[in-house]
Amino acid sequence: LPFNESLLHNFLSRRRPGQSVAVTARQESDTPEILSGILNGVTLGTPIAVIVRNIDSRSEDYKEINENLSKGTLPVRPGHADDVWRDKFGHSDARGGGRSSGRETLARVIGGAFAQMFVQHVSPETNIVVFPRQVGPLIVADEDVQPQNALGVSAHVKTEIENMLAGLKTEGDSVGGIGEVWMQSPPKNLGQPVFHKLKSDLAAAFLSVGATTGLELGDGFSLVNRRGTEVHKLTEHNEDSPFNSYGGIRGGISTGETIAMRVAFKPTSSILDVAKKGRHDPCIVIRALPVLEAMAWLVLADHLLWQRLDRV
Amino acid sequence: LPFNESLLHNFLSRRRPGQSVAVTARQESDTPEILSGILNGVTLGTPIAVIVRNIDSRSEDYKEINENLSKGTLPVRPGHADDVWRDKFGHSDARGGGRSSGRETLARVIGGAFAQMFVQHVSPETNIVVFPRQVGPLIVADEDVQPQNALGVSAHVKTEIENMLAGLKTEGDSVGGIGEVWMQSPPKNLGQPVFHKLKSDLAAAFLSVGATTGLELGDGFSLVNRRGTEVHKLTEHNEDSPFNSYGGIRGGISTGETIAMRVAFKPTSSILDVAKKGRHDPCIVIRALPVLEAMAWLVLADHLLWQRLDRV
Amino acid sequence: LPFNESLLHNFLSRRRPGQSVAVTARQESDTPEILSGILNGVTLGTPIAVIVRNIDSRSEDYKEINENLSKGTLPVRPGHADDVWRDKFGHSDARGGGRSSGRETLARVIGGAFAQMFVQHVSPETNIVVFPRQVGPLIVADEDVQPQNALGVSAHVKTEIENMLAGLKTEGDSVGGIGEVWMQSPPKNLGQPVFHKLKSDLAAAFLSVGATTGLELGDGFSLVNRRGTEVHKLTEHNEDSPFNSYGGIRGGISTGETIAMRVAFKPTSSILDVAKKGRHDPCIVIRALPVLEAMAWLVLADHLLWQRLDRV
Amino acid sequence: LPFNESLLHNFLSRRRPGQSVAVTARQESDTPEILSGILNGVTLGTPIAVIVRNIDSRSEDYKEINENLSKGTLPVRPGHADDVWRDKFGHSDARGGGRSSGRETLARVIGGAFAQMFVQHVSPETNIVVFPRQVGPLIVADEDVQPQNALGVSAHVKTEIENMLAGLKTEGDSVGGIGEVWMQSPPKNLGQPVFHKLKSDLAAAFLSVGATTGLELGDGFSLVNRRGTEVHKLTEHNEDSPFNSYGGIRGGISTGETIAMRVAFKPTSSILDVAKKGRHDPCIVIRALPVLEAMAWLVLADHLLWQRLDRV
Repeated sequence: LPFNESLLHNFLSRRRPGQSVAVTARQESDTPEILSGILNGVTLGTPIAVIVRNIDSRSEDYKEINENLSKGTLPVRPGHADDVWRDKFGHSDARGGGRSSGRETLARVIGGAFAQMFVQHVSPETNIVVFPRQVGPLIVADEDVQPQNALGVSAHVKTEIENMLAGLKTEGDSVGGIGEVWMQSPPKNLGQPVFHKLKSDLAAAFLSVGATTGLELGDGFSLVNRRGTEVHKLTEHNEDSPFNSYGGIRGGISTGETIAMRVAFKPTSSILDVAKKGRHDPCIVIRALPVLEAMAWLVLADHLLWQRLDRV
Repeated sequence: LPFNESLLHNFLSRRRPGQSVAVTARQESDTPEILSGILNGVTLGTPIAVIVRNIDSRSEDYKEINENLSKGTLPVRPGHADDVWRDKFGHSDARGGGRSSGRETLARVIGGAFAQMFVQHVSPETNIVVFPRQVGPLIVADEDVQPQNALGVSAHVKTEIENMLAGLKTEGDSVGGIGEVWMQSPPKNLGQPVFHKLKSDLAAAFLSVGATTGLELGDGFSLVNRRGTEVHKLTEHNEDSPFNSYGGIRGGISTGETIAMRVAFKPTSSILDVAKKGRHDPCIVIRALPVLEAMAWLVLADHLLWQRLDRV
Repeated sequence: LPFNESLLHNFLSRRRPGQSVAVTARQESDTPEILSGILNGVTLGTPIAVIVRNIDSRSEDYKEINENLSKGTLPVRPGHADDVWRDKFGHSDARGGGRSSGRETLARVIGGAFAQMFVQHVSPETNIVVFPRQVGPLIVADEDVQPQNALGVSAHVKTEIENMLAGLKTEGDSVGGIGEVWMQSPPKNLGQPVFHKLKSDLAAAFLSVGATTGLELGDGFSLVNRRGTEVHKLTEHNEDSPFNSYGGIRGGISTGETIAMRVAFKPTSSILDVAKKGRHDPCIVIRALPVLEAMAWLVLADHLLWQRLDRV
Repeated sequence: LPFNESLLHNFLSRRRPGQSVAVTARQESDTPEILSGILNGVTLGTPIAVIVRNIDSRSEDYKEINENLSKGTLPVRPGHADDVWRDKFGHSDARGGGRSSGRETLARVIGGAFAQMFVQHVSPETNIVVFPRQVGPLIVADEDVQPQNALGVSAHVKTEIENMLAGLKTEGDSVGGIGEVWMQSPPKNLGQPVFHKLKSDLAAAFLSVGATTGLELGDGFSLVNRRGTEVHKLTEHNEDSPFNSYGGIRGGISTGETIAMRVAFKPTSSILDVAKKGRHDPCIVIRALPVLEAMAWLVLADHLLWQRLDRV
């Protein structure tokens, strides 16, 4: 597989914090070192190992938290998982949230970058677009909007978001949000029966991302109120809409139409009045978008391989 | 493990169609024959094999569909997966929906029954309650209601549901719905880091059920609009509410509080004017409830075993 | 995949005991009932379930053993695993040896039959030949012999074997043996790096069969004494020999040459003076041959599928 | 788990080449850098990542081989796997043997070191002893010998081995060998039914090591000729012998007695007259011993965890 280095860097840079007011102030250079699996610009088929060293962990910021942890004066950070991890494994390293730190999403986007290289090599027309549907109470994209730039929103909306988040940061508060993922021109017939339906694996992938609290495929919860005679029409795809009610998956299998999913995030739990020295985002959905995208590429890549076993 | 035969039969009977106007008219006796793994009233640790023979398949009802399939005059049943399965695997057996027939949920409830025996043996206080939150436009349970009987709703609401569904059946139409699952007093510390968070595995399990189209954990999508300072409070559990905002899972791990999830279903795709001889439910959510419960028991059982590897 | 029913029956009949003096007197009809996965003579891609009911278990033969087990007067059957299973799982069902009964090999040959259908569909030239290399002290096949009939040996040798085994049966004694497996014209490039080399998976498959105690690939242990300059020659395949020193696997990968393996079995542990009512074979290797063959087909089938993921 | 750094270094140093005439001249410092999973001298339960950089690859030695590979003038190194890997994956990196280089065993001993820490933490009395049973035609250990030092043999035998190997190195030749592994006082009841018998997993683990060509458990092939009445005795363990005929495994499960296995290796394929610039061992068995030990620790560790799921 030709190794697309700029694709990897692009993924890392989109995930990187400290780029604007909207996201946390930490400066992470995220320079990847490729240890194995790539030679002369192609992957070898051998395991690909990439390391990114943490050059700005400022673990002293977490010193007080760690002390509280060891003194047993818990919980110190509402909404965080320090206490449950400690209870589960007998210890907890609070530096950067330890096991449930957003830092682990770095590995996800690296994996996602390679998955994208593979999927687009096999299916060049496939693309994934991610954008915020909602940031706190701010409905960013209405039903008709098409994602347009890095954030997937218009410059005007971007400014609105940044203003709101700057305000929250000052107030030491946070909001939730909804991220949307469109897998355009996906390979069809992806998904396995019963326990590995494509929607099932996508749901697991998205819900494995921290702070997620809900998920919709296609028209999602809005389908509940609708009549079958209205939803299930022979001509089911409406040219005016970017996707059909089913969200591109029927019987658990991709139909080749755009797969559309929405993921809800709860408000960031690191709020300034509680753990004021931690540098965190007032809304996680912005930084989570490349992570959702990476997870989607990974699931498509897995199922593309799996599909090779479908027939004798 | 002591084998609780009545628990198995109870699960099968709740899933069985033909019990009331609300569900399809097929008569399935669902008598299980246990082939292996149980001797003298206890499980042996060896694989448990159970078969339930299909005595009322009426496959002649599907004859016309099969003929259309083989003639290539597809799609015949909007919303069904006959065509995608056929495209994927090169053939499709339309009898009862073939691979994506609701009939496969029988295996899920059998598995769920054994999972319940195991979980409650290890953690007797754990229980799972399922009830419809919404049937079509009818909001069955408001936020305060507690599940009360087999359906988990009051007799009055049950009548309302049945009347609505009887009407839909006459009209040859269908609606969607929302099923709710409360895992009460679950074992705590269930869930694994990164890719097997408990919410991730539950999401995969629920979305593997046919016709599902969305999912919420705890306060779900309603958390999007709320402020972090309001959601993340040190005293997070409100005695007046059956569960907290997080839905009993933090950092991907069960906290021991009630795990609450909601699953959205789209309207049944088998509508009378299209495939009038098939006998189908005008709203799948009623029959899906024991299936959701079974999936929840299975995930809890898996994670209870997995948890044994958490510590040295 | 076209379903070859006679291939399945042939496998079952070769494994079945009671065919001659050489094997145990139990009469098992082994009539398979196919529950799922096959329609109109082809596999559907859905799981294939087959049951064979045990019509001659004579569990009363094992009554005394079970009583000894429950009284704790163990070990009753030297070389058997009743006591270790009991210690491991807290109980043991001695009927037919319970979990370690030779009866479980029935499932292996059924699986092997379907694996053979698949492998030969994809690679029609591939065939597997099994024969006894040694039965107790009797060296059945010298290096030059080619397998010739059902047992893979000449009629003369077959008589010799049967006479020896009849004698052992009278004496209430048993011997070990060596079974040999030749996978002829196998697909090449099967095997994965590091932990799933083809030889590794074949070793695991063969050693998972009861009573096995050793294994050789190609020239096996005899290679230990030889010089590298002699073994590793550019023209490595000798036309006079059915296979090369490496046994058809280099670097853990099949080369396309005959894969040759030998499996050693210890003497049957069910000997008459100890458990006289059990009906057992004085040498397990004869009945084990179709089981070894089945395991070989299963490993080839797995790796044929796996191989589909080798390249982008 | 307390991290035992010296145990890790000991494993690495035993595997390292260049220590004596008996092994290849490459100088590899094998300094491990621990990237994650260990803090303040204990493992965290998070994944442990260790890297060892290759500081002496002398890949120019392999330049000629790579050129031959790309010119298609294959095979250049009899017994090597360059050609089969190339055929399988479409390319091959001959540096150090590429994918089938002995260099990959470094990862095995690192894993084995951590497995040993875990097994001995849970079962402190368990130990593993490895020694050469045979080096080429030289029978190093007779049946009665007990392993005594680093090599597991007496100083006299060590000198004999070194002299023989020095001679082979001068002649540009190589021999095979037999390595023996004794797992002393292993936990009992390890092993799962049917496909993951302990002997099956150990066989897979040992046969996954390069150049292996055969395997014996306990008395192995010598059991073939023996009578059941002689082998299966109620008092099966002979105090004079370090292990019983069964090699410590019955019914696929560890009995708590010493598990004894032998592994045969073919002569090293890198012989001087063919690839004279490569620096290779005239007998691989010496360097393979810590690798076999590591694999044994890994299998025991896996099954110790697995065993936790044996009972309700």
